[in-house]
Amino acid sequence: MALRDKLRLIVITDKKLKPNVLGSVRDALEGGATSIQLRLKDSPTRELFELGREVRRLTLEYGALYFVDDRLDVALATSADGVQLGPEDLPIDVAREIAPHLIIGASVYSLEEAIEAEKKKADFLGAGSVFPTTSKSNIKVIGLDGLKEIVKKVSIPVVAIGGINAENVRSVLSVGVDGIAVISAVMAAPDVRKATMELKRIIDEVVSCLQE
Amino acid sequence: MALRDKLRLIVITDKKLKPNVLGSVRDALEGGATSIQLRLKDSPTRELFELGREVRRLTLEYGALYFVDDRLDVALATSADGVQLGPEDLPIDVAREIAPHLIIGASVYSLEEAIEAEKKKADFLGAGSVFPTTSKSNIKVIGLDGLKEIVKKVSIPVVAIGGINAENVRSVLSVGVDGIAVISAVMAAPDVRKATMELKRIIDEVVSCLQE
Repeated sequence: MALRDKLRLIVITDKKLKPNVLGSVRDALEGGATSIQLRLKDSPTRELFELGREVRRLTLEYGALYFVDDRLDVALATSADGVQLGPEDLPIDVAREIAPHLIIGASVYSLEEAIEAEKKKADFLGAGSVFPTTSKSNIKVIGLDGLKEIVKKVSIPVVAIGGINAENVRSVLSVGVDGIAVISAVMAAPDVRKATMELKRIIDEVVSCLQE
Repeated sequence: MALRDKLRLIVITDKKLKPNVLGSVRDALEGGATSIQLRLKDSPTRELFELGREVRRLTLEYGALYFVDDRLDVALATSADGVQLGPEDLPIDVAREIAPHLIIGASVYSLEEAIEAEKKKADFLGAGSVFPTTSKSNIKVIGLDGLKEIVKKVSIPVVAIGGINAENVRSVLSVGVDGIAVISAVMAAPDVRKATMELKRIIDEVVSCLQE
């Protein structure tokens, strides 16, 4: 399966919303997440490492990719498939030099950052915030128009992020992105598996429409 | 110069006490610090990376070693000489596999942890807390007796840490450690350079006594 296909539905962990991180990861995988991103701010490295090893095991079991937010050390230590790097994290070229074998996703919040990240040889983009969101503070909302602009201007895969849910996911996919990444839509739901499954069902439906 | 000699006086950064981290590092190096440890909890990775690059430059200029606390990614990205790993950080053997060329200092808080860290092939130990300290919370005080026990039982270099200052440094060195690591003794002082110089003077005096 190509990278693009594995980026269709990235579910990102949220310890505040779901303190049982591994339980939520398993549920997301059961629901059809194609990638998991381990994202734990303010946790000790050892905790990230121990959780990461388990996420690695689970994602292999379900045939999903496993990314780590920000922490290249944890990605390397837990044999992740990739790392997600934003403007506050290590520069893409520096990370690439340290870990040439890792998939690097770049978090971008504008067309300029998107073009820059492609130049710096990111493997894919996480572009947003598409809609207002409570998961990340101080993030600019680029809207569907901003997202469309990015999709048109870059050739690497684009994953949309920020405030995406079952109600608006069709409109996001219609812009031509390769996938979506979610936190709240899944982690704030009472049933992570069900919420993931519902998103996945819509994504698969749209993808099969577009392929026909 | 052997590793042991470079471990005589490790000065650790403290952004709360000295917000101008690079200024404090330069002052410590001017005062004779033989190693600098970059330690910034809760700072974005990009900030650590940018500070780390400058600390790398400064330490090379002064012939000192440069260590990074906890963050193996930052150590690799800024060409540090080594990384300092405690029980909350990556396991020593995992870090060693990722970065075989780095010096690994293990932070240990008991004789058991000291013996374990030597077994896991740490290059040196940071052992403490020798005295009560305000720099780290929830840390057990092992005292001079606990420190002596560690020095007797391991053969890798031991650096003492925790509440060490110009008043008590002779008593610490008398136990047979290879060096000391300080935060408050230097970073809480009005003049970092002078405080470092005073500590260094005493250390050099004791070392030359012991060598005669």
